Amino acid sequence: MSKQNEFERLRVVLVNTRNPLNIGAAARAMSNFGFLHLRVVNPFELAFREARSAVGAAPLLARAGEFKSVAEAVADCSLVVGTTALSRRNPRHHVRRIEEATRVIRKRLASGRVALLFGSEKRGLSNEDLSHCHWLLRIPTREVHRSMNLGQAVAVCLYELARDPQASVKPEKHAPAIAADLERLTALLLDALRASGYLKLHPIASQKRRSAAPTEDKIRRLVHRLRLSAPDAELTLGILRQILWKSRKDNDRSQ
Amino acid sequence: MSKQNEFERLRVVLVNTRNPLNIGAAARAMSNFGFLHLRVVNPFELAFREARSAVGAAPLLARAGEFKSVAEAVADCSLVVGTTALSRRNPRHHVRRIEEATRVIRKRLASGRVALLFGSEKRGLSNEDLSHCHWLLRIPTREVHRSMNLGQAVAVCLYELARDPQASVKPEKHAPAIAADLERLTALLLDALRASGYLKLHPIASQKRRSAAPTEDKIRRLVHRLRLSAPDAELTLGILRQILWKSRKDNDRSQ
Repeated sequence: MSKQNEFERLRVVLVNTRNPLNIGAAARAMSNFGFLHLRVVNPFELAFREARSAVGAAPLLARAGEFKSVAEAVADCSLVVGTTALSRRNPRHHVRRIEEATRVIRKRLASGRVALLFGSEKRGLSNEDLSHCHWLLRIPTREVHRSMNLGQAVAVCLYELARDPQASVKPEKHAPAIAADLERLTALLLDALRASGYLKLHPIASQKRRSAAPTEDKIRRLVHRLRLSAPDAELTLGILRQILWKSRKDNDRSQ
Repeated sequence: MSKQNEFERLRVVLVNTRNPLNIGAAARAMSNFGFLHLRVVNPFELAFREARSAVGAAPLLARAGEFKSVAEAVADCSLVVGTTALSRRNPRHHVRRIEEATRVIRKRLASGRVALLFGSEKRGLSNEDLSHCHWLLRIPTREVHRSMNLGQAVAVCLYELARDPQASVKPEKHAPAIAADLERLTALLLDALRASGYLKLHPIASQKRRSAAPTEDKIRRLVHRLRLSAPDAELTLGILRQILWKSRKDNDRSQ
């Protein structure tokens, strides 16, 4: 079963959404991550299809299904999952953390439709809405600030659904220099290039007449690409300072 | 090193953000996931601290640092990571997928500050901004619709940074019903089937004539397959008791 076929089987269901901008934001995240089937239940504003926040997701919004009840919106789904900010408010419901929840959903999408429900901005899903759910999904947030913005919650859920569980790891080794050191290094290197006449001879010098920025940018990128460790940055700064000191001294003497 | 200490070392840096609502949305996601240090570089509207979209994140916004340049905003950071929607626009930069990028960032947060840069809504990070970055982070989105809403991109990055890589696959479950409850349920269900005449009409009733066991077994197996939690078993027992009481009462009355 291809990933695209599985994504085709998800239904994102927004229940009693108040702000059409949030429907637009949800639609945009859906389009970003490749989940193209939106259903809305009793949105507060019927003009939601024109939401400006839906950059790039107009076709998805135009095709969104409208329903009068949660029961109708989830009727053809074999798994119905509600989202909740709270971990303990619904003792009657089994609550899964998003990481596990999305694994179960992905598995289920291989064979049937799954509805993922999001409640209104103010109250979330009602008890009646929740009674249609097999279980609930929870995004772990700070206890002192649990409630997420609706569009952001949709984005995080769909990101996790689309996430590659096998994404690779490459460890890094060195203890890195801080940005201020790299900035100092960039400035010294530019000074050295000017003092040495490099900028007069080299192609990047020609850009300098029009604007100083491109050369500076190139040098800064170079410095960052080196991924210097803190001691290496210090060493390099010392070398450059010495070169500049010598070149100025020579310059003074020759005048 | 505690997770909270590591989170303390992240700096979310919003560069040239146009819409203060997006700064507010970013602040809300930061507060949700426990990253409390925001820096803004030249926001288009200086009134960003009053963004209404920052539900619950007003203190974080009030403390946000304002900077005139990216260089100043990242000066004390030992790793500077830019975010990009594109995978190939910046051949001069190393681009990491978010899953790997956040692993590297987390590791780095154990010893030093890390800046995570987000560009303006329209243009993202400029080449000059990018030249301050050691490498770039990319959220994999659909090729036909790459560009994410700023607040949603921040939410997804911080979610992934806060994500527990060891998130347990064990569901947060209610205690399952004990066997005695399931046995009581089986008995009551059988009573209800008898009282309702179901056993007289239905095929499994025919087996009953030979032996009571097969029907009873079938019902017991059904009850076990439901995998009821303790509270659900209790609820179901109550429902069945009520149905039986009513049916007996009706029966008595009709005799």
